[in-house]
Amino acid sequence: MNQINRLDIASLRADTPGTAHRIHLNNAGASLMPAPVIAAMKDHLDLEAMRGGYEAADMRAEAVSAVYASVARLINAGDDEIALTENATVAWQMAFYAQRFQAGDRILTARAEYAANYVAFLQMARRTGVTIEVVPDDETGALDPDALAAMMDERVKLIAITWIPTNGGLINPAAAVGKIARRHGVTYLLDACQAVGQLPIDVEEIGCDLLAATGRKFLRGPRGTGFLYVRRAMLETLEPAMIDHFGAPWVGADRYALRPDARRFETWEKNYAARLGLGAAVDYALGLGLDAIRARCLHLTDHVKAELERLPRVTLHDLGRDRAAIVSFAVSGLASEAIRSELTQRAINVSVSKPNSTLLDASARNLPTVLRVSPHYYNSEDEIDLFVDALNDIIASG
Amino acid sequence: MNQINRLDIASLRADTPGTAHRIHLNNAGASLMPAPVIAAMKDHLDLEAMRGGYEAADMRAEAVSAVYASVARLINAGDDEIALTENATVAWQMAFYAQRFQAGDRILTARAEYAANYVAFLQMARRTGVTIEVVPDDETGALDPDALAAMMDERVKLIAITWIPTNGGLINPAAAVGKIARRHGVTYLLDACQAVGQLPIDVEEIGCDLLAATGRKFLRGPRGTGFLYVRRAMLETLEPAMIDHFGAPWVGADRYALRPDARRFETWEKNYAARLGLGAAVDYALGLGLDAIRARCLHLTDHVKAELERLPRVTLHDLGRDRAAIVSFAVSGLASEAIRSELTQRAINVSVSKPNSTLLDASARNLPTVLRVSPHYYNSEDEIDLFVDALNDIIASG
Repeated sequence: MNQINRLDIASLRADTPGTAHRIHLNNAGASLMPAPVIAAMKDHLDLEAMRGGYEAADMRAEAVSAVYASVARLINAGDDEIALTENATVAWQMAFYAQRFQAGDRILTARAEYAANYVAFLQMARRTGVTIEVVPDDETGALDPDALAAMMDERVKLIAITWIPTNGGLINPAAAVGKIARRHGVTYLLDACQAVGQLPIDVEEIGCDLLAATGRKFLRGPRGTGFLYVRRAMLETLEPAMIDHFGAPWVGADRYALRPDARRFETWEKNYAARLGLGAAVDYALGLGLDAIRARCLHLTDHVKAELERLPRVTLHDLGRDRAAIVSFAVSGLASEAIRSELTQRAINVSVSKPNSTLLDASARNLPTVLRVSPHYYNSEDEIDLFVDALNDIIASG
Repeated sequence: MNQINRLDIASLRADTPGTAHRIHLNNAGASLMPAPVIAAMKDHLDLEAMRGGYEAADMRAEAVSAVYASVARLINAGDDEIALTENATVAWQMAFYAQRFQAGDRILTARAEYAANYVAFLQMARRTGVTIEVVPDDETGALDPDALAAMMDERVKLIAITWIPTNGGLINPAAAVGKIARRHGVTYLLDACQAVGQLPIDVEEIGCDLLAATGRKFLRGPRGTGFLYVRRAMLETLEPAMIDHFGAPWVGADRYALRPDARRFETWEKNYAARLGLGAAVDYALGLGLDAIRARCLHLTDHVKAELERLPRVTLHDLGRDRAAIVSFAVSGLASEAIRSELTQRAINVSVSKPNSTLLDASARNLPTVLRVSPHYYNSEDEIDLFVDALNDIIASG
């Protein structure tokens, strides 16, 4: 059966209360949560209110533990390789700052690397003398694996890239990068924030050692959730840059012992309601199937692009051979923020992405603040047409 | 008017749905949330579900910003001196790991320091060669300010203590420590996890430079919330050990600029529902008045202690001149965990505290796993009597 048609869009929309109120095309910011995610959170908040915060966590211990299993299944990892975190940045930071660099070591990254990660590189460079080097793009604008291969030497200590950049629509060749990292025995940290929930993810196929992701974007989970994958072999050596007694129990007057699993990167206290919401979101995505979601996202994205290309004064700013469900564009003579506000007035949610969110890429390409439209599988073709009509109208009167 | 009687306990209990279901004496673990806290969270989750996660945050920007003002008011600080964090551990870690230590530097702490903090000291000692030294107790078992003063020299780089230890019932003399820290120009980090929400807090009076606290305990906020106070003068020099583009925007190809305020210790993505719940909890506490809360807590704690002292085979393990609303005890011949389970069966929530949560203190005092009873202002005298009756019954049949 055709992957796209496997999804019953009407019923998925009925399951998404927000679709009755808005045309939500900001799924790369945060998706509309489906009913089971909202219910999982509210139910747990009620339980906490009725029984007590710790007592509720004890009562739902199995469900909380099942969240790790769900996340592991989502990316083909083991439960013991998953840490749940407050957000993807914390997950990424936990992985990155656990690395030990010396002056002269090299970090390789991609041109459209996200600001959150890049400022951490800069801090580490200042602190240790590690250098940050950007792998050139191929002719499509994605990271060029051949160029990466040519840059490898024994001073490369980390390859850290964003799989799907926050704007620009491209998908970097994560698995090709993984092959090179493995060949050279170099640690590979993948930021999968925009990938998780829109692409099938298999950490074995990718070959990454560390993967950071968020719950709120294409996964449709709650805000304030994320996770870190840590390859089992890494756990033999990787000590978190910061610890507490959850990740590193106090076992003797002057001794702590790191937990054997990836949860050494967590702290004791967690938001259980948010975690259960994350688990519900992962189960929801797995229930639909990531192949079907991917196919539907591509279909809608192609529809958005085809329509935008027809509009006057619109310039698409997307790159890459493989397309993500993120479309970036600007309208000549109109500020992206103003268009966003106009669309908000018309109950259409899109976002803007500023040059300093991907400063190297934005400078190289002379990017303005772009409008970012990010459909998800539950969006309808009608919604996209309504968005395009509204945009056309704003352009005509602007 | 008598402070205790200022609180209308019946109406506060009506405002706390959990009191209809449990006798909750685990407020040092996590309090029962009052209705406005639960409503603040659920309302925001609904708004996110209806309007989108980012869009909801934009719509509630003023309310979110007001949370900083509320927290600042709670501790007599400025809005710009507050960072909101996922929990108190993250707040404390952000403060602690931002310190720069060299071999031979000294960290001074108290004997009942919490495991979460102590393992971080140990990691820092291993990493930098800083030494960790425990300030002796006075005759009541609290940190002795005179002993602290005698230990001060130019190698002391940090005083880091827990105001109210997780068990043992004592309140360390936070303001006396502050005077010594200021006299010597030494950075003073105070863990106020168990203090916030049960004591009036004034960072000017205490003289601490950094203060970490949680939302879920006596403040009655949600799980997964906390905050960090950073004295304004500290912001001139203190760089977080980890950064992202929220705390340190990417301002040039090889440059980031730290935010001027304490929010440099935050990351971009947050759980907005939890934050709004925290704000509601702080406003609730401020509305009642911390003096009245403190008086009522003391009254109930004295009641618990007086009753426990009457019971056979019960040994109280509390110390200190100033009493917190935490009562720690053990029953000879009965495991604390077994008693806790029995009480749970009878709809009474208490907690246990293991030796490795305060290892130095537990070793010095040869503490077993203790039962911890922590009443809060909304508990009734009847609830305490019912708890004591149940405990007496368990002891009699055990």
